[in-house]
Amino acid sequence: MKKHNFGAGPCILPEEVFQKAAEAIIDYNNSGLSILEVSHRSEAFVEIIEEARDLALELLNLKDKGYQVLFLHGGASFQFVMIPYNLLETKAGYLHTGRWAGKAMKEAKKIGNIIEVGASTNKNFNYIPLIETSLENLDYLHLTSNNTVVGTQMKTFPITKTPLVVDMSSDIYSRILDYSQFDLIYAGAQKNVGTAGTTLVIVKEELLGKVSRSIPLIMDYQVLINNKSMYNTPPVFSIYTSLLNLKWLKKQGGIPAMQRMNSEKAKLLYNEIDSNPLFESTVPLKEHRSMMNATFILKDSALASKFAKLSLDSGIHGITGHRSVGGYRASMYNALPLSSVKALVDIMKELERIG
Amino acid sequence: MKKHNFGAGPCILPEEVFQKAAEAIIDYNNSGLSILEVSHRSEAFVEIIEEARDLALELLNLKDKGYQVLFLHGGASFQFVMIPYNLLETKAGYLHTGRWAGKAMKEAKKIGNIIEVGASTNKNFNYIPLIETSLENLDYLHLTSNNTVVGTQMKTFPITKTPLVVDMSSDIYSRILDYSQFDLIYAGAQKNVGTAGTTLVIVKEELLGKVSRSIPLIMDYQVLINNKSMYNTPPVFSIYTSLLNLKWLKKQGGIPAMQRMNSEKAKLLYNEIDSNPLFESTVPLKEHRSMMNATFILKDSALASKFAKLSLDSGIHGITGHRSVGGYRASMYNALPLSSVKALVDIMKELERIG
Repeated sequence: MKKHNFGAGPCILPEEVFQKAAEAIIDYNNSGLSILEVSHRSEAFVEIIEEARDLALELLNLKDKGYQVLFLHGGASFQFVMIPYNLLETKAGYLHTGRWAGKAMKEAKKIGNIIEVGASTNKNFNYIPLIETSLENLDYLHLTSNNTVVGTQMKTFPITKTPLVVDMSSDIYSRILDYSQFDLIYAGAQKNVGTAGTTLVIVKEELLGKVSRSIPLIMDYQVLINNKSMYNTPPVFSIYTSLLNLKWLKKQGGIPAMQRMNSEKAKLLYNEIDSNPLFESTVPLKEHRSMMNATFILKDSALASKFAKLSLDSGIHGITGHRSVGGYRASMYNALPLSSVKALVDIMKELERIG
Repeated sequence: MKKHNFGAGPCILPEEVFQKAAEAIIDYNNSGLSILEVSHRSEAFVEIIEEARDLALELLNLKDKGYQVLFLHGGASFQFVMIPYNLLETKAGYLHTGRWAGKAMKEAKKIGNIIEVGASTNKNFNYIPLIETSLENLDYLHLTSNNTVVGTQMKTFPITKTPLVVDMSSDIYSRILDYSQFDLIYAGAQKNVGTAGTTLVIVKEELLGKVSRSIPLIMDYQVLINNKSMYNTPPVFSIYTSLLNLKWLKKQGGIPAMQRMNSEKAKLLYNEIDSNPLFESTVPLKEHRSMMNATFILKDSALASKFAKLSLDSGIHGITGHRSVGGYRASMYNALPLSSVKALVDIMKELERIG
């Protein structure tokens, strides 16, 4: 039985992506070759990466606006290092909204001078903090648009001349935004882009070339741009699945369609969390709640095993909270169908009924 | 028609690996989940990476000898940076045997003090140079065991107290060696390990913790070891295909079986190159020739289009030389069957016949 996969990432992708990826592993496009044995210098792969780059920008409405697109190795955590290497000369600001923002800060501190412009550490990151510090004279301001672990999400972004660098690993392509307000967007692929193993980086080229530091070539955005993401062998298969996923996204109607679906899913689940007396959201401020990751607890932990049994019986998978916080987390990325959220809400109601 | 894939990498893998990888994308192990949507923290994936780590060591006969195994992001080119970050305190030596050795040196020079202990630059790297410099007082000596672009291969290695760091991207698991003579072995997966997107690093733990430099956490071998290659989300699918490939390798009889097969393939092809008057090896010293990548030219380039036509008609793929050197290159990694080499030799004979 196909599971309802609420896992936080690597996460569910559209069924069509799985089917096409599997076919390409047996024979890519009737070439007599598996996608896994295709050279990254071949015409076949160059077409794949070019189409993926184009679609990545087009779907965000960022074409012809001075952005470059990279599909890199290494996961978003590598960007925690590459960003300060490439952009941090004097001082950068970081908004401390959760575990991943904290990890980004930790790496940046090893490289240069950063300040914390705001933090929600005092309440275990269960809200989006205000910016308390001037944003003047910063090389960039680093934000995490969605906090996967604690289930909070930024709904608005600072209006400032300071370049905005945003980790969108868990909510890119999920909602309508003016993406051109950002100067650098990055996202580990394994949620709304594709599969683990590549990271999408979209950067305004005018941001580059301003630091005096000597940057390792493999971590220098300009070198990677000049080599079209092929300074070394790229993660071919992860990029191919990203293309499949972005094509699926476009066919569904792009970001507007995703936003409609994602709002509906989130509304359904949060309504149940708020109205069902057995459950409680761990993000009290409704306007700070994530549309991607809903975190909640069972008020009476004695019911946990009954809830686990109901989940198992209904094929509901991956709703355990992050190991650092416990509780539950239902991740509702683009590919998760509404029917999966309905299945989850059904067992929450059922638990209330049987008590 | 299935191609005879002589591509240099990403390259051919065993048919069984393609089949099992495709199955796992549809449904991993009857779990109701695709391998692409499985959490890296799940029991399923932890089993995969642990088995892969174990097999990686076992096949090299390196178990219980103080080595740690990592499956990292980023391709071998990232190791060009991570190695000096983690190991270079005072001075390191590099043997300059080709394009990739050169790239490794270029990155290391940005980080610390290195010396070139020998080089074959004077003859376009068509031989393995002697070591001309003392190896005393080096933090490590960096070697490239097989030079994919020019088709040379080190058959013996220096006997020295200096730790040996070796890039085995294109010949790991292909031949019998005392692998315990090396202190750090690394290999981009996309040749004899698995698919592009992960890099195998096998390191003696006693080598670590000796530099005073502040290392980015995501590039600190000790941090990565402590987190069992899961400091961040690992490239799940690339690691899974590596496991499939290593299991195939073991079933075939491990490295001894590979060496037998690879010797036979190499002998067959080099015999033809040397005896066929139309062709010439680009590595004159036979004992320096690579068993993995045979590089050669057509003496009369006017025959190139005839040869291309014969290749196409026989389903021979990927024998164009590296864009930096031209000519031909037939890569004969572990998964390439003898029948493919026979097919290539057949068209070489045919070209001689029709002239």
